[in-house]
Amino acid sequence: MYDTIKHLIETRASVNHYDTSRDLTQHDIAELVRLATLAPSAYNFQNWKFIAVRSPAAKARLKAVSYGQQKVVDAAVTFIICGTLAAHERLASALQPSLTAGILDQALCETWVGMAQRSHCDNPQLQRDEAFRSASLAAMTLMLAAQGMGLSTGSMSGFDPLGVAREFGLAATEVPVMLVTVGYPAPGNWPQKPRKQLAEVMAFA
Amino acid sequence: MYDTIKHLIETRASVNHYDTSRDLTQHDIAELVRLATLAPSAYNFQNWKFIAVRSPAAKARLKAVSYGQQKVVDAAVTFIICGTLAAHERLASALQPSLTAGILDQALCETWVGMAQRSHCDNPQLQRDEAFRSASLAAMTLMLAAQGMGLSTGSMSGFDPLGVAREFGLAATEVPVMLVTVGYPAPGNWPQKPRKQLAEVMAFA
Repeated sequence: MYDTIKHLIETRASVNHYDTSRDLTQHDIAELVRLATLAPSAYNFQNWKFIAVRSPAAKARLKAVSYGQQKVVDAAVTFIICGTLAAHERLASALQPSLTAGILDQALCETWVGMAQRSHCDNPQLQRDEAFRSASLAAMTLMLAAQGMGLSTGSMSGFDPLGVAREFGLAATEVPVMLVTVGYPAPGNWPQKPRKQLAEVMAFA
Repeated sequence: MYDTIKHLIETRASVNHYDTSRDLTQHDIAELVRLATLAPSAYNFQNWKFIAVRSPAAKARLKAVSYGQQKVVDAAVTFIICGTLAAHERLASALQPSLTAGILDQALCETWVGMAQRSHCDNPQLQRDEAFRSASLAAMTLMLAAQGMGLSTGSMSGFDPLGVAREFGLAATEVPVMLVTVGYPAPGNWPQKPRKQLAEVMAFA
């Protein structure tokens, strides 16, 4: 297992050129999102939303609010991955499946809802941080799952968030954190770019 | 490969109880960080820093600024994963390895540095968003790599960021985004908690 995950991480590279002749099934797209939602989130907030953009018309609208980047049209699908604000307001509902499954009990759920309420309620910056954290954890999970399916991905933060919100009818609580293009690669993509020396970014304590 | 990544994603669960008798080697810890740094970041900013907390004294200091959560002491290692602000100021240096490898040329590097400078320079919220995005992508990569090594992990956002910064000497630009505990699990952990129905969080466009 370690060899496989190591291989997937080492061979993932952000792709700009996609094979426009190859599509993804609705089933495969849903499976990628299902796996993405298995990422962790604080309190199991699950404060995310995934819009799978794959119709030509929707891709064109997305391209227009992504500084004209062609890859959002060429990829089989581009996910708009949103983090949601005010996650504490929906925590009780997010925990319901864990309660039903008997993993958490009612008292613990209520404790968590109270804690989340107190820390998040009047703290818009924490809400935004949490949206970015959860959506990014889910996005990385989705990208590695796609890599395992033999697909390539590209994560993009270069887009107009207000334009994306307007074109795709996002609620005020839905913050577009990242676009992730997914599809089969065409020739001409960069290899994974080399990284800084480990010693520059790591310390032991 | 798909079966393996699917299995790793489906079996990852946030762990609270660790086997305190089993340690991790410095080599394995460094390998986890190396793989984490292969996560994508905007412009290949690599705007992250990893502090591997594993000495008893450092773990005790971390516990004190993590609301007394015992798992940061019981885990073999707890990573303080930081995102860094003002990433544009270090982009030229972050791209140097790609320039040396001949993947990017000087003109493109300069274009990217100029673009990043213009968008990030006077935009502290974008800098913070970028720190959370990059650090979270790296954190998820690290957790799945650890899962592949047969280890368990726990991601925590419940800590005092100012306390962590003070105790571990973080620079003003280093934002602690997440703690990630890593080690061998003990009995008594929860299984992965069930998620919302897919239809609640997914839409097609």
